Formats: sequence, C-alpha cells, structure tokens
Amino acid sequence: MIVDCHGHFTSAPKVLQQWRHNQLESKGLVYGRPVQIGDREIRDALEPRQLLEQRTRGLDLTLFSPIAGQMGHHLGTPEKSHEWSVICNDLIGRVCALYPTNFAGVCQLPQSPGQDLRRSVNELERCVVELGFVGCNLNPDPSGGYWTEPPLTDRVYYPLYEKMCELDVPAMIHVSSSCNPCFHHTGAHYLNADTTAFMQLLLKPGLFRDFPTLKLIIPHGGGAVPYHWGRYRGLADMLGKPPLAEHVMRNVYFDTCVYHQPGIDLLFKVIEHDNLLFGSEMVGAVRGL
Amino acid sequence: MIVDCHGHFTSAPKVLQQWRHNQLESKGLVYGRPVQIGDREIRDALEPRQLLEQRTRGLDLTLFSPIAGQMGHHLGTPEKSHEWSVICNDLIGRVCALYPTNFAGVCQLPQSPGQDLRRSVNELERCVVELGFVGCNLNPDPSGGYWTEPPLTDRVYYPLYEKMCELDVPAMIHVSSSCNPCFHHTGAHYLNADTTAFMQLLLKPGLFRDFPTLKLIIPHGGGAVPYHWGRYRGLADMLGKPPLAEHVMRNVYFDTCVYHQPGIDLLFKVIEHDNLLFGSEMVGAVRGL
Repeated sequence: MIVDCHGHFTSAPKVLQQWRHNQLESKGLVYGRPVQIGDREIRDALEPRQLLEQRTRGLDLTLFSPIAGQMGHHLGTPEKSHEWSVICNDLIGRVCALYPTNFAGVCQLPQSPGQDLRRSVNELERCVVELGFVGCNLNPDPSGGYWTEPPLTDRVYYPLYEKMCELDVPAMIHVSSSCNPCFHHTGAHYLNADTTAFMQLLLKPGLFRDFPTLKLIIPHGGGAVPYHWGRYRGLADMLGKPPLAEHVMRNVYFDTCVYHQPGIDLLFKVIEHDNLLFGSEMVGAVRGL
Repeated sequence: MIVDCHGHFTSAPKVLQQWRHNQLESKGLVYGRPVQIGDREIRDALEPRQLLEQRTRGLDLTLFSPIAGQMGHHLGTPEKSHEWSVICNDLIGRVCALYPTNFAGVCQLPQSPGQDLRRSVNELERCVVELGFVGCNLNPDPSGGYWTEPPLTDRVYYPLYEKMCELDVPAMIHVSSSCNPCFHHTGAHYLNADTTAFMQLLLKPGLFRDFPTLKLIIPHGGGAVPYHWGRYRGLADMLGKPPLAEHVMRNVYFDTCVYHQPGIDLLFKVIEHDNLLFGSEMVGAVRGL
C-alpha cells in the first residue's frame, strides 16, 4: 500500500476561498454562516485532479489537509481563525467520508499570533475523535513571515504535544502564506520554515525527552537540511548536543517533496530510510516543469 | 591559483569584540576611540589558524572579510554601524597589507534598519579605491532575523549596485547574527537568507536588466536552492519568469561551503560549473566533525 503523506485540497471549490474572503471582511467576532458546497462539487473538484493523479501514479491513500497557503493564521481574529479551521476541516472530513479508501484527514489548527494553543488542542481532538483524522499541520510561524512567536520547543506548544501523544497522531510542520515581502511563500518561506524547525529541534533535546513518542514530519524534503547534513552533524557536535541519529532523528521524519532526481538521490543517500515518508504535495504548489 | 572566495576573520583578537561591546554601551553618537591591535597580534591571530590552514590545504588566496556574525547591523545607531564597519574594514586592510599574497579584502557595509544605502556606497568606494578591496558583504536582512527591510531587488539598493558595477566588484549576500529566537544564526538564519535572496532575484528579472554586469555570490552552497533546483525551475516556469540559465544564473554564483560530500556532489551535478566559486568559510562557523 502506497501512502502519500503530503496532500492539500488545492483544488477546493472556489466558493471556499470566497467564504474566507467574506469572513475576513465581516465585522462580527465570527462570520457565523456555513459554506455552501455540495457533494457533487467536492467530487468534481477531486475526480479530475487528485483522484486522477492518484490512479495514474499508482498511489493508494493520501493524507489530505486544507490548503496550507490559505490557513492564513496571521489574518483576522483568533475566533475567525477557529471558525475558518472548523470550516476547512469539516470539508476535509467530507472528502474522507466520500472517498474513505483514498483519503485520510489531516487538520488545520486554529493558531493565531500571540495566542496559546488551547483552541488548537480542542480542534485536534475533535478532528481525530469525531472525524477520524490521523494528524495535523502545525504552523511554526503563525505571524506569516515575521517569526514573532516562540520556537517550536517552547512550553507554549506543550499542551498540543501532550494531546498529540495521547491521541497518537503526528504533526507536519507547515507554514502558511507569507505576508512578508521578503519571502515568496513556496519559493522561500516554506523551505526556510523547514530548515528553521529542524534547527530548533536540534537545539533542545529536552523536547523529545519530555515527549518520547512525539512524531514530527518536516516537509519539502527537510528544507535545506539534508543538503547541509554535514553542517547539522557538525553543529550538533560543536554545540554539545546528542548525535542526530540518537536525538532529533528518533522523532522527526522528512517527506520526499523534492522535485528533481538529484535532490531525491541526495535525500535517500544521506537520511536513514526509516526517517523518510513518501510525499508528493499533489496537486502541489509548483505545477511547472 | 586556488582562490577561496569565502573567509572571515573569525580569529580576530578579542580586543576587537571588546571594542564593539564598549562602543554599543557608550552613550555618544559614536564611540570615537581607535581599536588597539598591533601587527604582532594580527600575525598571531592568523598564523596558527587561517594561514596554517591555507598552507595545509594548498590554497593560495582567500577573499577575507570581517566576522559576518558580528556585523550586527541591527545593533546600535546608523552612526555606530558606520564606525564599526570602518574599524573592521581597516583591520582587514591591515591583514591584506601584511599578507598581500594570502588575502584580498572584502568589506562589511554600514547598513542599518530603515536607512538608505548612502553610507554603504561611500564605505564600499573607500575600501575598494583606498584599501584595494575586491568586494563587499551585503546583508539582505539588517534587522537580524525579522526581515523588516525590502527585498534585495528594491530600488533602495540601486545606488549600491550602481557603485558595485562602476567599481566592478561583486557582493556576497550574507546575513549577520540573528536576534530572533526562532533562528539559530549558522543553523537556520544563514541558509534561510541564501534561499530567500535567490527567490527574490528570480522574481524580479528587471534587476539584472538594469544592472547587466552586477555579480552576486550566494554563499553556503546557495542555501536550499540546488537541493530544490526542480522547485525553482518549476517556479520560474509557472510564474512566467525567464529560464534560470538565461536570467538569474547570468549574474549569480554559489560558493561551495557545503560540509559533506553528498551535498558537494549534488551542487556540482545540478549547477553549471561556471556559476560555482570555491569557498571554504574557513575558519568557519561550523568547527565540529
């Protein structure tokens, strides 16, 4: 069975984006309206895209989450971030109910700059227990490119990690869009976040001592990390941290979203195969050559 | 002749760092005192480190600049940043005068958040014309990890690019230390900046149309870029930009500061060799395994 660990509902009906636009424009604490998407529209959005690609490429199951670039945790109020997450996650839940053998749900978390993770803990629990989801996407920079929140190893994240361990589900570390003109989202912000997250984890071995069963997936082939594996091995040594194999790499996985063969070859040469998860980011952020 | 394009005076006498500390603590607009370092101390700092390594490894000439992590453009006033740059560059000038066949100077620029590049233009000219320097280090994030300045393609940088072209010297794109707790400097901020700069250049082909002879070096093997070359090729295609070979890669060079063989192999497989410059970052940021 071939599982693709990294898929987003990038082909979601446009009415979803319109709903978000209206929500952000609305004056109330929340928007309070449902999104009107029928089963037919969900099928039409998936059949010619993700499902066709799944079949064509011989994949069995995709771990499927809302569009990462539209999580937009830096937009609107914490309440609207929560409402938006519920809308998006429920839609993923319907996808999984319509195609239970093709998709397993991964939820967006209602993060918001400067907020604790209480809402995220509750939404994760709701998605896993009620909707049967198998993981979540955790945004290491809810500010959208200004990196104003603490590192992933900060105790503010601990309630979420406790819940993840209790439910036995992993998180993919995945930023959303960038509102910082320095960072193109898929060309810089995504890869920077992957690299940044790995280094945060390397610096604080205490995290995985506190949560020995915590599982984190760093997407896009680990950002810059495997290419610079010697740098990280050297830094771990120089900074007096445990060797990577005995520390970070007991709890961290990289996906294979590296879009050319030399990169894939390097990934498989450098990283233990037990730490690699097949992922295609399909239908992905880069749809060119 | 083997030229190492990427060396910093990381072994500089400690009195330099102390001077900077005192300067930042001082109340005036500038500190106004010289730094007391004798020729003997300069020789003692270099002989057992950079010069020994040069000989041992069979290198001929190192392009040598002040310690990148201590440029600290986010610290102090613009006037102090200027004073500090002059102090550091003059010290590099003395290194090059003492060892003219071993070192060629690369200057630090007196950048400062929210400031135009006038001081940097003048300091570049002084270093090249008066001290015989051959390039500069340009910080794409003088805020030290908050990325509050415009992208490198912004017109605020144009006076510097004009002067670089006039003097026919390149810039290495190199951040300084990070004051953002999310970013470890050598483990995240450096590589993120390399990746970010490349994507900024990809997005604005107008820059190299305006400055056809501008030469920029992206250090640390190009950050995440060569590992994700397929992503960048795809993004250029998808965003309607010229193919990389006909655009960015006419003006951009990567150094070889990738500290393990698989990374080096990938770099040489993916990037045209005319775009690669030998660099060792020696004595470098990562001194472990």
